[in-house]
Amino acid sequence: MKAVILSTGDEILTGAIVDSNAAYIAGKLVEAGVFVYRKYSVGDDLDEIISVLTEIGTRSDIAIVTGGLGPTRDDLTAEAVAKAASVPLIFSEEADRSIKAYFRKRNRSEHIADKKQAMLPDGSICLPNPVGTAPGFITKIGQCHLFCIPGVPSEMQYLMSHAVLPEIKKRFEDEKQVFRIKKISLFGLPESVVGEKIDELSSHFPEVKLGLRAHFPMIQIRLYAAGKQDDRIREQMEKAGEWVMERLGQWIFSKAGLSMEEEIGRLLARKKATLGVAESCTGGLISHMLTNVPGSSSYFIFSAVAYSNQAKIQVLNVSTDSLDSYGAVSRQVVREMAKGVRDVSGATYGLATSGIAGPDGGTPEKPTGTICIGIATPDKVYAKTLQLSFEDRIKNKTIFAMAALEMLRREITGYAVS
Amino acid sequence: MKAVILSTGDEILTGAIVDSNAAYIAGKLVEAGVFVYRKYSVGDDLDEIISVLTEIGTRSDIAIVTGGLGPTRDDLTAEAVAKAASVPLIFSEEADRSIKAYFRKRNRSEHIADKKQAMLPDGSICLPNPVGTAPGFITKIGQCHLFCIPGVPSEMQYLMSHAVLPEIKKRFEDEKQVFRIKKISLFGLPESVVGEKIDELSSHFPEVKLGLRAHFPMIQIRLYAAGKQDDRIREQMEKAGEWVMERLGQWIFSKAGLSMEEEIGRLLARKKATLGVAESCTGGLISHMLTNVPGSSSYFIFSAVAYSNQAKIQVLNVSTDSLDSYGAVSRQVVREMAKGVRDVSGATYGLATSGIAGPDGGTPEKPTGTICIGIATPDKVYAKTLQLSFEDRIKNKTIFAMAALEMLRREITGYAVS
Repeated sequence: MKAVILSTGDEILTGAIVDSNAAYIAGKLVEAGVFVYRKYSVGDDLDEIISVLTEIGTRSDIAIVTGGLGPTRDDLTAEAVAKAASVPLIFSEEADRSIKAYFRKRNRSEHIADKKQAMLPDGSICLPNPVGTAPGFITKIGQCHLFCIPGVPSEMQYLMSHAVLPEIKKRFEDEKQVFRIKKISLFGLPESVVGEKIDELSSHFPEVKLGLRAHFPMIQIRLYAAGKQDDRIREQMEKAGEWVMERLGQWIFSKAGLSMEEEIGRLLARKKATLGVAESCTGGLISHMLTNVPGSSSYFIFSAVAYSNQAKIQVLNVSTDSLDSYGAVSRQVVREMAKGVRDVSGATYGLATSGIAGPDGGTPEKPTGTICIGIATPDKVYAKTLQLSFEDRIKNKTIFAMAALEMLRREITGYAVS
Repeated sequence: MKAVILSTGDEILTGAIVDSNAAYIAGKLVEAGVFVYRKYSVGDDLDEIISVLTEIGTRSDIAIVTGGLGPTRDDLTAEAVAKAASVPLIFSEEADRSIKAYFRKRNRSEHIADKKQAMLPDGSICLPNPVGTAPGFITKIGQCHLFCIPGVPSEMQYLMSHAVLPEIKKRFEDEKQVFRIKKISLFGLPESVVGEKIDELSSHFPEVKLGLRAHFPMIQIRLYAAGKQDDRIREQMEKAGEWVMERLGQWIFSKAGLSMEEEIGRLLARKKATLGVAESCTGGLISHMLTNVPGSSSYFIFSAVAYSNQAKIQVLNVSTDSLDSYGAVSRQVVREMAKGVRDVSGATYGLATSGIAGPDGGTPEKPTGTICIGIATPDKVYAKTLQLSFEDRIKNKTIFAMAALEMLRREITGYAVS
């Protein structure tokens, strides 16, 4: 089963909106075991839509078309499908009932323009739409099963789950496959090196496909496989996962594909431990990441974003002597910050950062990209300095935050990956 | 000039990522007066890429191709372009220099796999990439000018502005027009309402095109116009800008299209004023946003991310009585937090948030989406409560942070837009 997705609408082509519908639909199709091999976007242009539909009709088993079903003049999908399939547009009683029901339920009156939405290509099956005015429809162009649904995200999502996916399942029952995916999260290596280290995967596990996804600075390795025999797929996936662990274990922080903040949250919650953070160069990003995780209030107690020396002294009890002798970006100061925030918050762990995110503030001894990370635990306080310079301030902040959380993760786990 | 955009990568076809690159590129091309008539996405599949490139070569003047330039085996763009153009891949000295320079600057060693990135289709012009390992290239397939750039957003954006757009401008000099763009930033209305309020713009100013770009929860209105007479374009743009201000003035926070954190930074720096922040529900996001702006250390002094009541009491001097009587999410408590952080940091302004970002923690009286914002200035302390519930925790944090910064902006400016 080979599928394509076609998004229509000028707003996609001008970049006015990001086409998140296409990603949603692709994800749902992949989960259903349908392979998406191409996506198209075209504007509200009749000839262009017809041209793409004609091409799709000769190449695909399934096509999902979004947008262009509304009441206005630039909604052209039904007309283009009719032309591409060489059939007339005819009035659909069922589509008309769907539109009337929608308006009745909302005590709104139908406009003449809305009648246009009941004109469907001859031979179509109407997909009633209880969450919007425009019904969808299913038809065929050549050998391709064409599912046309609205572009409004909530309506698209409703019709995908209630009409399109069940119908695809029914029509392609015989070709159904099991689909499995495994995600592994890693930090500390560039994508090229990760790719190189596991490049041979497919020669060992021919059924397993490999994908790398870089969310700077985290990399997610994705293993996926599809087939008829679930047992075999599952076994291959497990072995491939172990094979990856052998090669990249020391950089992997979650075998379940979690983000760093989710993994830290999971570890702290499991230990019933709590955390206080003192941020200088990361400027609040560590706190923001941690508090993005639902339930983080059970382990995240307090963070001091202490940009000024005065705040470091007053809130975190950093000594003026240390600031004068070593400077704010020093192992001595982050040790005191980590201890200070642990004391003031009463948390199990204290984590502190101080560094130079740039573009200004670097010196020959401490260039942009220098970061000191401090950790305080119930029985020790320690720190390290790293050089991690990237192109811009936001990237530097991001990698600083990840490096600090990774150091904390190693402290909590004693270097084990769970 | 007709252009297409081709995004490559399995992660786009499987829905693992939303293809925001394509929207970015489309926006930039439209601004440059280039008409995008189609977008394609294909996976990391050599035959598919060749097939699309061959089609593009017969139909387009310009094609921007993203992704597939990296060092790993599933990076196939250069090979596919070479096959589609019927030329060999050859070793590019310039590309090799670009790769070497990147690694040298970062004191990192090049890997064998990186050499692959220096193999470009014969006849290509290399686009050196100082912000990543993979150089881009320009070549032709049929009559189509093909610009191949990396898929990593920061590298794609760098090469678009530094190489692709200047080169397009040069190559299509004859068709050159003056192009003007005006960006206006706004917060507090949904995109559909903004669109409706200025829908008539084109009937008043036929030469001015309108684009809306939503960076949730900020909306950027973009007015652009192209033509041969600069004076006329400039006048039309100014009038159109005033027309927009009349309709949306009360929601506009920057007539120069700045982000909220840039605008706040500009206002504080101009006033030589400083800021201390006390964040509860925003969890560090306000601090992160403010410190993303280079130079923010001159006005951003200190932030306390005080999730726990104990931290609110100890660091911010919030009274136990207020917490007991009114609850942490209350106008009384954010007033004390704002005053407390202003006192402890010694800043001109104190800004505080406390609310319920969800998914848990809501009550019938204070549902998810409730936020209290407090402000302390040299001569007063005040607060307000808003209901701003969105789909998820991160969206709620984002809109809470924006609402708080907007309230501060109004305090600093006395409601004027600059």
